[in-house]
Amino acid sequence: MPSSAYEAFITRVKEISTARAIEAVLEWDQETYMPPRGAEQRAAQLALIAGLAHQRLIDEAFGAALAAVEQEADPDPVVVTNVREMRRLFDRAVKLPTDLVQEIARTVALAKTAWVRARKENRFADFAPHLERVLELKRTVADKIGYTTEPYDALMDEFEPGARAADVQKAFDELKRQLVPLVRAIKDAPRQPNPELLTRPAPAAAQAAFGRRVAADMGFDFEAGRLDVSAHPFCSGTSPLDVRLTTRYDENYLPASLFGIMHEAGHGLYEQGLDPAHAGTPMGNSVSLGIHESQSRMWENLVGRSRPFWAHYFPKLQAEFPSFAGVSLEDWTFAINTVRPSYIRVEADEVTYNLHILLRFDLERQLLDGRLKVRDVPAAWNESFKALLGLTPRTDAEGCLQDIHWSMGILGYFPTYALGNLYAAQFFRAAQRALPDLDLHIARGELRPLREWLRENIHRHGQRYRAHELVQLVTGEPLTHAAFFEYLTKKYKPLYGF
Amino acid sequence: MPSSAYEAFITRVKEISTARAIEAVLEWDQETYMPPRGAEQRAAQLALIAGLAHQRLIDEAFGAALAAVEQEADPDPVVVTNVREMRRLFDRAVKLPTDLVQEIARTVALAKTAWVRARKENRFADFAPHLERVLELKRTVADKIGYTTEPYDALMDEFEPGARAADVQKAFDELKRQLVPLVRAIKDAPRQPNPELLTRPAPAAAQAAFGRRVAADMGFDFEAGRLDVSAHPFCSGTSPLDVRLTTRYDENYLPASLFGIMHEAGHGLYEQGLDPAHAGTPMGNSVSLGIHESQSRMWENLVGRSRPFWAHYFPKLQAEFPSFAGVSLEDWTFAINTVRPSYIRVEADEVTYNLHILLRFDLERQLLDGRLKVRDVPAAWNESFKALLGLTPRTDAEGCLQDIHWSMGILGYFPTYALGNLYAAQFFRAAQRALPDLDLHIARGELRPLREWLRENIHRHGQRYRAHELVQLVTGEPLTHAAFFEYLTKKYKPLYGF
Repeated sequence: MPSSAYEAFITRVKEISTARAIEAVLEWDQETYMPPRGAEQRAAQLALIAGLAHQRLIDEAFGAALAAVEQEADPDPVVVTNVREMRRLFDRAVKLPTDLVQEIARTVALAKTAWVRARKENRFADFAPHLERVLELKRTVADKIGYTTEPYDALMDEFEPGARAADVQKAFDELKRQLVPLVRAIKDAPRQPNPELLTRPAPAAAQAAFGRRVAADMGFDFEAGRLDVSAHPFCSGTSPLDVRLTTRYDENYLPASLFGIMHEAGHGLYEQGLDPAHAGTPMGNSVSLGIHESQSRMWENLVGRSRPFWAHYFPKLQAEFPSFAGVSLEDWTFAINTVRPSYIRVEADEVTYNLHILLRFDLERQLLDGRLKVRDVPAAWNESFKALLGLTPRTDAEGCLQDIHWSMGILGYFPTYALGNLYAAQFFRAAQRALPDLDLHIARGELRPLREWLRENIHRHGQRYRAHELVQLVTGEPLTHAAFFEYLTKKYKPLYGF
Repeated sequence: MPSSAYEAFITRVKEISTARAIEAVLEWDQETYMPPRGAEQRAAQLALIAGLAHQRLIDEAFGAALAAVEQEADPDPVVVTNVREMRRLFDRAVKLPTDLVQEIARTVALAKTAWVRARKENRFADFAPHLERVLELKRTVADKIGYTTEPYDALMDEFEPGARAADVQKAFDELKRQLVPLVRAIKDAPRQPNPELLTRPAPAAAQAAFGRRVAADMGFDFEAGRLDVSAHPFCSGTSPLDVRLTTRYDENYLPASLFGIMHEAGHGLYEQGLDPAHAGTPMGNSVSLGIHESQSRMWENLVGRSRPFWAHYFPKLQAEFPSFAGVSLEDWTFAINTVRPSYIRVEADEVTYNLHILLRFDLERQLLDGRLKVRDVPAAWNESFKALLGLTPRTDAEGCLQDIHWSMGILGYFPTYALGNLYAAQFFRAAQRALPDLDLHIARGELRPLREWLRENIHRHGQRYRAHELVQLVTGEPLTHAAFFEYLTKKYKPLYGF
């Protein structure tokens, strides 16, 4: 029986998360169906509801409710988790003065507009003063939050609770050491794919039907979710019973929507796999962005770009899209695994992708602790890019101006993308050990066993474990680059024949 | 220059209406795109945001802000309107104790479920105790709000501010006196339409495209609005820049969607025609449900079912829908103006429709002041129905159980539908006087002049005038049945040849 103090606390927690859920619906609507001229009023709506959620969180009454439950020290893991995570959120929120939060909101609104223009006109200098200001404010945030080793930790903690930059650096260093030669070996390999065949015509409606079918096969519940179109694909979950995916359709490039849908459905399965009994509390929330990304990347790449997957789905694809008739399963599987260093992160293949992240992680840390000056970013970016990917961006627009994140004040977020790739490989290896017939299942189009395993071992835990604990628990080892590299080697060596 | 007290007041007013706008987005989403399993969490979201809006309205601080502005007694009509209407809302809200409001919410939740089942199983007795309870609570509401003549006035005031049942009764009595013989004359007329041709096949996608085109011709701005599908068509406006229409498509009955879209777009033009400078304040709000309905019914019936309209659109319709080839403009125009007494209000034609309303208005008043007992409703309904429409409902499901309103505690709402029809005819007659070429414009597919006139004379005023003042101002006469009856006679006599 939960105590009355705990029940009062949970009522407040759920109210805060209900406000956040409303915010998510409004944001989803903004990206999918809102008429263009509704933007201004939507901003007022979002400000109101975000403000409400924040006020209820930093409310003294909430602090008192939290303290009362802490006093009781109930050892039930559900209680322990919910209290620990709400304490973390509360402490972060109350440490930030309202005028600082508002100043950040104002600054990033201007910075985002400046970034859009600067990228379009390829003028980094126009964005530089905004980035200076953003960094200054984020340094203040880090100082207010507090950290032991470096300010970056305080910021990254928002997205990957408990992660420390030094540990991430270690995994990334090893990754880099092995990735750079792998990329070179692939580049120089005797066999090369024919990515041209990916550009054959594919009507949007048929892409939507096919993607929807794959998502359903993965176990995505369309009674508790949707798939729509937006300019930038995303997954929005307001509860395990209302999870919304978006994608976009390029009629001359089917992989964008198909792997995009599998990616977002991977996120979606995590959201739908959370325990509805704990909805609106930390026990019913995902662990971190890195763990979230492990689910999306696993379905997109380790499943979606695998030979067994296409053994089942390629004949079905060919039946729906006549333009792929005559293409062999081998050529198709090779083509969707084209590896080629390129400038733009969001278009990168799974091998080179992490190098894009390593670069950003490194620059962000240097910017934050002052080792790198804003005016030197373009040069540092291009130098690092050349070292990691062997290319020199021709413009800043395809270099250091390509991502929206900094203009939004989002620092410490990029590493979660790479962490997701590493976690994905670790989890998938554990799944393969636990389910010896996994490849066989996938080759028959039976994707549910993997979903069940993920649900049981990852989704259902909510935030009971921090990311590093969960990885240890599920895979028997800490965060490592090894599983990811093993996966890449095993896949790409035979494909490219080196 | 507005005073600082007025600015503080308006800030609070806009906050309340922003919360209401969020509520409207959530409700729209619920009816259009929300996954079925998301319903429970959506209820929590709606309760939170509706509660917030209510709290901010009845907040003592809001009362003080309102009183401060009243003190200043600024004669600017914008200030006068905003203060008068917020005073009205505030006084209504604070008069209702929170426990009464919550008791009503609980009661109607149960009543709605009971009504759904009772209608399905055709068992009025199962719904009767719920209706008793609803009536009891609504009587309490009326008493708390206060009234001079009868409790009905206090309830109707929520939907039609300032309207009094006795005045409505007068207009309705005259209407009844003339409508009943008109319906009989039509029934006995020598010429009769062929409504069968309305049931010819019409693909949903083509219906959507055609409806969208007509709405755009009417001047509905799709950059500031949308058209989607829902089970029950509605128009949801959160600001003049975000107005959302819904409809439904029956592939064997095109008029449902087409006139439905024109109806909702009529509502939508009103919302889009409100002054964005006053958005979120009474000066940027519609006058009443009756005035709102006048806009939708005018476009649906006085324009959409007119000969000039189809002179332009019928060839276009035939070009898009081959199944209407060979139908003459005369036969089409006659068919869409089929008049035939029927049991279900929402399917009624424009002549018999008001009789359905008269019946409900009469029963509601009797129920509220106790002259009619709940257990006697079925008999009273059927007797009245026979007298007004010449038919006896075969079941309560197609009789007194057909509407959802009472189960939701909505009493005093029905008359606004009939008022809308009367206002529509009055306004349209005024428009015809002001725009001598109106019919000619419509016959050329030029629908904008009417929209401009409506915008100028009705929409732009927001709530500056009460309904009865607006009608007087725009038409030079008070509410009357005469314009409506004149319109009907002029249209239906030549059609049916009596």
